[in-house]
Amino acid sequence: MKTIHLINRPEGTPSLNDFKFVEEEKPTPKEGELLLKTLYVSVDPYIRGRMRDTASYIAPLELNAPMESQLVAEVIESKNSNFFKGDFVTGMLKWKEFQTVPGTGVNKVDKNKAPLSAYLGVLGLTGVTAYLGLEKIGDLKEGETLLVSGADGAVGSIVGQIGKIKGCKVIGIAGSDEKINRIKTKFGFDGGINYKTTQNISNDIANSCPDGIDVYFDNVGGEILDAALANMNKFGRVINCGAISIYNESEIPMGPRVEGTLIKKSIRMQGFTVRDYVKDFGPAIKQIADWMQEGKITYSETIVEGFDNIPQAFLDLFEGKNHGKMVVKV
Amino acid sequence: MKTIHLINRPEGTPSLNDFKFVEEEKPTPKEGELLLKTLYVSVDPYIRGRMRDTASYIAPLELNAPMESQLVAEVIESKNSNFFKGDFVTGMLKWKEFQTVPGTGVNKVDKNKAPLSAYLGVLGLTGVTAYLGLEKIGDLKEGETLLVSGADGAVGSIVGQIGKIKGCKVIGIAGSDEKINRIKTKFGFDGGINYKTTQNISNDIANSCPDGIDVYFDNVGGEILDAALANMNKFGRVINCGAISIYNESEIPMGPRVEGTLIKKSIRMQGFTVRDYVKDFGPAIKQIADWMQEGKITYSETIVEGFDNIPQAFLDLFEGKNHGKMVVKV
Repeated sequence: MKTIHLINRPEGTPSLNDFKFVEEEKPTPKEGELLLKTLYVSVDPYIRGRMRDTASYIAPLELNAPMESQLVAEVIESKNSNFFKGDFVTGMLKWKEFQTVPGTGVNKVDKNKAPLSAYLGVLGLTGVTAYLGLEKIGDLKEGETLLVSGADGAVGSIVGQIGKIKGCKVIGIAGSDEKINRIKTKFGFDGGINYKTTQNISNDIANSCPDGIDVYFDNVGGEILDAALANMNKFGRVINCGAISIYNESEIPMGPRVEGTLIKKSIRMQGFTVRDYVKDFGPAIKQIADWMQEGKITYSETIVEGFDNIPQAFLDLFEGKNHGKMVVKV
Repeated sequence: MKTIHLINRPEGTPSLNDFKFVEEEKPTPKEGELLLKTLYVSVDPYIRGRMRDTASYIAPLELNAPMESQLVAEVIESKNSNFFKGDFVTGMLKWKEFQTVPGTGVNKVDKNKAPLSAYLGVLGLTGVTAYLGLEKIGDLKEGETLLVSGADGAVGSIVGQIGKIKGCKVIGIAGSDEKINRIKTKFGFDGGINYKTTQNISNDIANSCPDGIDVYFDNVGGEILDAALANMNKFGRVINCGAISIYNESEIPMGPRVEGTLIKKSIRMQGFTVRDYVKDFGPAIKQIADWMQEGKITYSETIVEGFDNIPQAFLDLFEGKNHGKMVVKV
């Protein structure tokens, strides 16, 4: 069986050379353990942060050890009385074709309620991120204007739909006309801006948001954040959820200072990490599942096939090749 | 009688040439009005923002019209039944030796409870700024570490003392050894850093705050803010109260992008403008007055004499020539 190790901490953009496929013997579960077969692997921008050797909200990945992320796996052998052969589970697990785990740290999921891959996306960390980011930091009120970057992405597309459920005007930013079209037709955004073809993103935001921005859900950072800040209303809130545009920089990049703008407009900017709110995951997932059943929330996913393609799928995130949640089906 | 007009919107650092002394006739109060004689004039960094022609939290000053700020004045004639000759009032008033006002927009102050100049400082907007900034944004808890910039200034010196009252470790940043000495001996700070002589402010902060920073009360912005962010703890709060280090820049200056740090450490940065909390002024001033009576809060003021010296006193703020509240006694 194969496993994927991190063998190099990349400077700048990661490449396939940072990963190595290693052959291992398929493990045998001890008493109390489960043997899992990997079915779906989540690849996410935040993993880039874990490839660094520096303190972050989550411990760095070890060098010459397996990569890890959220997975859906099938229990193919159980020596734990809480799990049975044929159960499906999710958890933060290793990039291995097979692995043994104790019965802790994995949660059962129901294949009949939603497709298994959804538990890595809309009913997993990305859906919860969208919901709790808006809930805990956004303080979004009916009638306000919500701007979302990475709008066609896994988190952004859910954020926009929740904004519409809450009765807000929702504008999205994404990197292709196809994506802009999709956020409007599939996800119900009121408008969209293609940041790759715009002449002046700040002007385009001003035109799309004539009443200014009350809440900006930021998945990208960088110059799009600058343009959003320039268009925020007094008492605006910025949910700093991601900064994919700068994750590959080896030094902190420079940008216009924000402190003058924050003071002038009494703006709140707050870093959001979904892991800070683990105790709220249950109610959040229930709410999203309810909205899905009511037909108010839909989702996109890009499913890449094959264990060997996990590293490339991860790299493709930084090119924006996914729409919606990027998942690898093993 | 004299009045001081703004005659030029400065690019960069303001100068005496931006002001003009204009002779006017002393006004006569109409029915319902008061005639005021200016006694004390508050000069404050935020006034720099009002000299620009751009939207801010407070309207721009008009060109070729009188400057204005918080004043203490004496009622020398009253045609309003709520005020009497000999009353003292504060309010946002013009830089004029004498002026008439309607009975609204000024508040009586009691000369027997505190020196009149204190109503422009510790018992005025600066004291309230310190108190409400910590209260509304800082969410300061006992045992936490509080870092304050502009620590010997009008706001900073009160912030530090409130931090000590709340049972926190308090470190201040200021621009001379004399100021550092004063914040420790007079205001009870646990330590101080002279940013003008430090080799590496980030290292000095790290050494002074071995447990990291939980709350940073920022009066200066710029590189000191960068150094503070580098030393913030997870869930840290930054109160963006002032940014005097960048107020004189004609374009927004560049600095290291903050979004990655905010996300990594779940930091909240929030612009604070005391005028957003007018309804809380009463209880805030009462609390500060109580602490003063208990001997827990003291204050510094730099009193410059003479109406003609108001513009120079304002300019001296940007050189850090004041310690504590800068006030002009007319």
